[in-house]
Amino acid sequence: MPRPTPVAPVGPVHPGPTARTALRPATAGITAGFWHTRREVNARTSIPQGPALLESAGNLHNLRLAAGTAEGEFVGAYPFVDTDVYKWLEAASWQLAQGPEEDLTAHVDRIIGLVAAAQQPDGYLNTWFQLREKGKRYEDLRWGHELYCAGHLIQAAVAHHRATGRGELLDVARRFADHLDTVFGLPDSGKPLDGIDGHPEVETALVELYRETGERRYLDLAEYFVDRHGHGLLGGEAYCQDRVPVREAENVEGHAVRQLYLLAAAADLATETGDAELRSAAERLWHAMTTTKTHVTGGLGAHHDEEDFGDPYELPNERAYCETCAAIASIQWSWRMALLTGEAHYSDLIERTLFNGFLAGVSLDGERWLYVNPLQVRDGHTDPGGDQSARRTNWFRCACCPPNVMRLLASLEHYLASSDDEGLQIHQYVSGSYSGAGGTVRCETDYPWHGTIALTVEEVPDDRPWTLSLRIPQWCREFRVRCEEQTYDHTDALVTTNGWLRLTRTWAPGDQVVLELGLEPRLIAADPRVDAVRGCVAIERGPLVHCLEGVDHPGGGLDDIVLDLTRPLAVKHRPDLLGGVTTVVAAGHRRRIPDAGWWPYVPATDATDSAQSDGDPIELTAVPYYAWANRDDGSMRVWLPTS
Amino acid sequence: MPRPTPVAPVGPVHPGPTARTALRPATAGITAGFWHTRREVNARTSIPQGPALLESAGNLHNLRLAAGTAEGEFVGAYPFVDTDVYKWLEAASWQLAQGPEEDLTAHVDRIIGLVAAAQQPDGYLNTWFQLREKGKRYEDLRWGHELYCAGHLIQAAVAHHRATGRGELLDVARRFADHLDTVFGLPDSGKPLDGIDGHPEVETALVELYRETGERRYLDLAEYFVDRHGHGLLGGEAYCQDRVPVREAENVEGHAVRQLYLLAAAADLATETGDAELRSAAERLWHAMTTTKTHVTGGLGAHHDEEDFGDPYELPNERAYCETCAAIASIQWSWRMALLTGEAHYSDLIERTLFNGFLAGVSLDGERWLYVNPLQVRDGHTDPGGDQSARRTNWFRCACCPPNVMRLLASLEHYLASSDDEGLQIHQYVSGSYSGAGGTVRCETDYPWHGTIALTVEEVPDDRPWTLSLRIPQWCREFRVRCEEQTYDHTDALVTTNGWLRLTRTWAPGDQVVLELGLEPRLIAADPRVDAVRGCVAIERGPLVHCLEGVDHPGGGLDDIVLDLTRPLAVKHRPDLLGGVTTVVAAGHRRRIPDAGWWPYVPATDATDSAQSDGDPIELTAVPYYAWANRDDGSMRVWLPTS
Repeated sequence: MPRPTPVAPVGPVHPGPTARTALRPATAGITAGFWHTRREVNARTSIPQGPALLESAGNLHNLRLAAGTAEGEFVGAYPFVDTDVYKWLEAASWQLAQGPEEDLTAHVDRIIGLVAAAQQPDGYLNTWFQLREKGKRYEDLRWGHELYCAGHLIQAAVAHHRATGRGELLDVARRFADHLDTVFGLPDSGKPLDGIDGHPEVETALVELYRETGERRYLDLAEYFVDRHGHGLLGGEAYCQDRVPVREAENVEGHAVRQLYLLAAAADLATETGDAELRSAAERLWHAMTTTKTHVTGGLGAHHDEEDFGDPYELPNERAYCETCAAIASIQWSWRMALLTGEAHYSDLIERTLFNGFLAGVSLDGERWLYVNPLQVRDGHTDPGGDQSARRTNWFRCACCPPNVMRLLASLEHYLASSDDEGLQIHQYVSGSYSGAGGTVRCETDYPWHGTIALTVEEVPDDRPWTLSLRIPQWCREFRVRCEEQTYDHTDALVTTNGWLRLTRTWAPGDQVVLELGLEPRLIAADPRVDAVRGCVAIERGPLVHCLEGVDHPGGGLDDIVLDLTRPLAVKHRPDLLGGVTTVVAAGHRRRIPDAGWWPYVPATDATDSAQSDGDPIELTAVPYYAWANRDDGSMRVWLPTS
Repeated sequence: MPRPTPVAPVGPVHPGPTARTALRPATAGITAGFWHTRREVNARTSIPQGPALLESAGNLHNLRLAAGTAEGEFVGAYPFVDTDVYKWLEAASWQLAQGPEEDLTAHVDRIIGLVAAAQQPDGYLNTWFQLREKGKRYEDLRWGHELYCAGHLIQAAVAHHRATGRGELLDVARRFADHLDTVFGLPDSGKPLDGIDGHPEVETALVELYRETGERRYLDLAEYFVDRHGHGLLGGEAYCQDRVPVREAENVEGHAVRQLYLLAAAADLATETGDAELRSAAERLWHAMTTTKTHVTGGLGAHHDEEDFGDPYELPNERAYCETCAAIASIQWSWRMALLTGEAHYSDLIERTLFNGFLAGVSLDGERWLYVNPLQVRDGHTDPGGDQSARRTNWFRCACCPPNVMRLLASLEHYLASSDDEGLQIHQYVSGSYSGAGGTVRCETDYPWHGTIALTVEEVPDDRPWTLSLRIPQWCREFRVRCEEQTYDHTDALVTTNGWLRLTRTWAPGDQVVLELGLEPRLIAADPRVDAVRGCVAIERGPLVHCLEGVDHPGGGLDDIVLDLTRPLAVKHRPDLLGGVTTVVAAGHRRRIPDAGWWPYVPATDATDSAQSDGDPIELTAVPYYAWANRDDGSMRVWLPTS
């Protein structure tokens, strides 16, 4: 199959030629700095570990069994184990887009061969149902994950095709998609099954497959799947996004990752078809989610039970679920919304999520993972172990998160900048090079440790004026920008519009813009309806949410610590600590708690009396949340009581 | 088998003749008042519904299948469905102890017949493993619940024997226990299996069977099972009480009901054997539980996931699990501790749990149930349905709670009073008659609505002086007692010792004691380490925890309500409301919440500014927590923000 003409850079979101997006992804490359380091760890440690982990966990064995080239039993507890392979293939493909790597190419080719060999003649592919639950194809759509697996296969195939120009995996994906298109459709379509998958994912993948192949059937099938959610085909549960149609929903609900993948597909469809109702629903739901159901880290999902969004303002700390995959899905959805609408707040959430709720999911050494990302671990925590542990582990029984982290980091440059007819938009500040219709700009920065961002125009195609747009982060209250001879700051009226600082001129190579974002540490309070953090503040600096760890506060735990609001915060650069971080130092004390006997609830007047007796002063060291749980297993907290 | 000579009243805890308890249960009968009404509903509505519900849910069908007297498939999703039958039989038996009832006796006899017919020749009985998982006996002790089922069968049998003097069910139970005794033992015992059940229950049942039959083997087997927990026989999980031996544990952990049933057995063993180490462990664990892991309602269990105790001070509101069965298990354990030690605080917790965390589990009409008992339902709550719903339902897929409520209510009189050589102890204030070694005392009271408790001596065997001990509740700060010509109150030094007010004299029939407990409503605050309720108070009056319900506060929800600490609380008797309750009325306001845009976290200084702007004043009506969810489905909260 000939490779289609690229209409956008080689990246994971690739709006079609007629897509109605406000913005298009820019071509980008990360060259240095904070995210470069994290991506190097991903490229040198995390991704290379994949093949061995997939081998030892049995995923590759299952593919060989399905192909008839090995003997034994199916290994794995879930019907979606194949997706670990697909997500790793996607990560490896994006990595290969950075440049050829012989070893990695060999692993990718070998594993694609296993996948292709396991596919059934009619295009179906799912080792669980080919081996363990033979003959039960599509009998349990609520839990079977067959279309979910297809979706990840398709995404991997699109990535491999875009990154390498090769079609082996895309052929497999198309055969599976063509098969699905013969099976699923409305009752009057003449197709045998009117159904949806309990775990959305195939929807957004099918849109990408349409984009990559130009085959309209895939887009139509995606639209069918999106719109059949919420009609009770799976029993009507919120968990599998079947309680209410996307177009009618008023808030995000049910299983967080399921909801977010579905909404990414809604954004994709609105992008490709111009469906205003779907766009409006996606905008409404994004706003409801951020306003009422998002943790300060950008983490999503309040319940361990069912991995569920909770009720509005139900945002617990120690039981925050905040699955790493949900953070990734949130970034994927928000990026689609950013491109579709051109609005900056979507990239505000992406920034917050990237630096906090997402990045905490992988250890600094790239070898250990968190599936859930709590905002507090108590003194005396008894860890139950397992996937939902608050302790990092090397791999999971349900290993969805690690390869998901790998694929996002390997494709990160595609979430940073965009372009339109007017020019180039810089959404995130990462040292690298960004090209749009107007030209190419180089960014140099030590962000998030320092607030100086230097942008240099490198190439311009002609002397027409264009606009360089810089996102002023939502958290930023003070900034200054120097554009050649002129200087503006946050006190200048109309410098920014909806979060964008727009600099329009006839740019020439060598032109410089220097943006200075104020990084004074700040104390943050929540909407009073967030009961879990009443009377508490969080420490932030720039895009980073900070936390206390027990290991930095010897001589006691964290449960009795109080932050003193009246004393200033200080900043301390610590190149020695956690790979080099900037800490925020606050003043506080350890509360003296009188012995109430066996019952911890006392008349409020007694409690007020005892609150007056402050305890020993203590210096509080707040490290960036993303770096927690990289030293001792111990207590941690983001939200700090103030009285 | 001859009926053994009773050594204590016909009740569920029956220390043996050589037991080393400080106190013995008193003979008691409830005649009027609050609990009489609840027991009448239990006797007239809840218990009579049992046979039809057990029939429609398939439990009786399974017994017939196992007996070979019916055809069809096993019905039910869990291996412990038989216990619904046993717990109902236990409830019905305690009910029959109140007096003969022809219909109920017929149902009991019929169902005992089904149970007896289902038993296998070797004594084994479990319909799941006899029908659905044939041949897998004891292969999955972690999840099989075979010994758990045996335990409930034994408890039902003991109750039936004590209540009716008949031995049909006791014979079944003994055959099963004898069988277990041939199967389970230490590796050097020569018995085939060294194992424990994933759900403790058989341990406390076996102690009662020993007490009822005098057969020492049952006590030894109970001790073996208790002590084999915590040695990794089930993989070492806290969930099934296998992480640490009871004797070494420092705090309660794992699945709440499992933990509490095991600790009831530990108390039973310490009672019967005088095992000081076990007694000390039980005392330590009770203290750790109440100090760090008990909700203000007496509810236990912080996690939906695994129905688990959380970490110390992890006591969420909307996600409080507080399973109704855990409240019952807590009462059962605490009563054993009260008898063992003679200490009043165990009955303090029983009172709190009875009136709040337990009683909320059943609707006022006795027809609808709550499995979980949250302390908050938010505005905009999306209920997932199912057993863990915050909405009452008629029966559960896992129907452990309803018959558990029935058996506790039917045997409630046995948790109210005790006696020892010195006299009679009144633990709970319920209108009725209580007899100990010293004599018989009649109690008349409209408690908890009014604080006056009139006690009249009815019979005394001789003119030796004895002590009438009255528990002064832990929540009570002001009281007065008139004992014939003398009056004492809380300002008199040494009137009470460790919660007991002891009145010693030569009592004569007609002697009167009138205790007046101050029932001024009060505001309660939690230990500051209970993060979930920081900046909040709860309203209590007497033993009752109160809550707000949305239905009483039209024109808005409960999430924006603030209680005004500076205004007094008022009391309003409402005979029209919820079967007649006393409400507490407080002053508050609806918070004005400024629109923060799409992100609910703002600089703390902004938050403080907006907190100054109070909103519309509102009268807050707090109803007793036990009566919540008996009107509209809506929001509810126990803990109320104060700023």
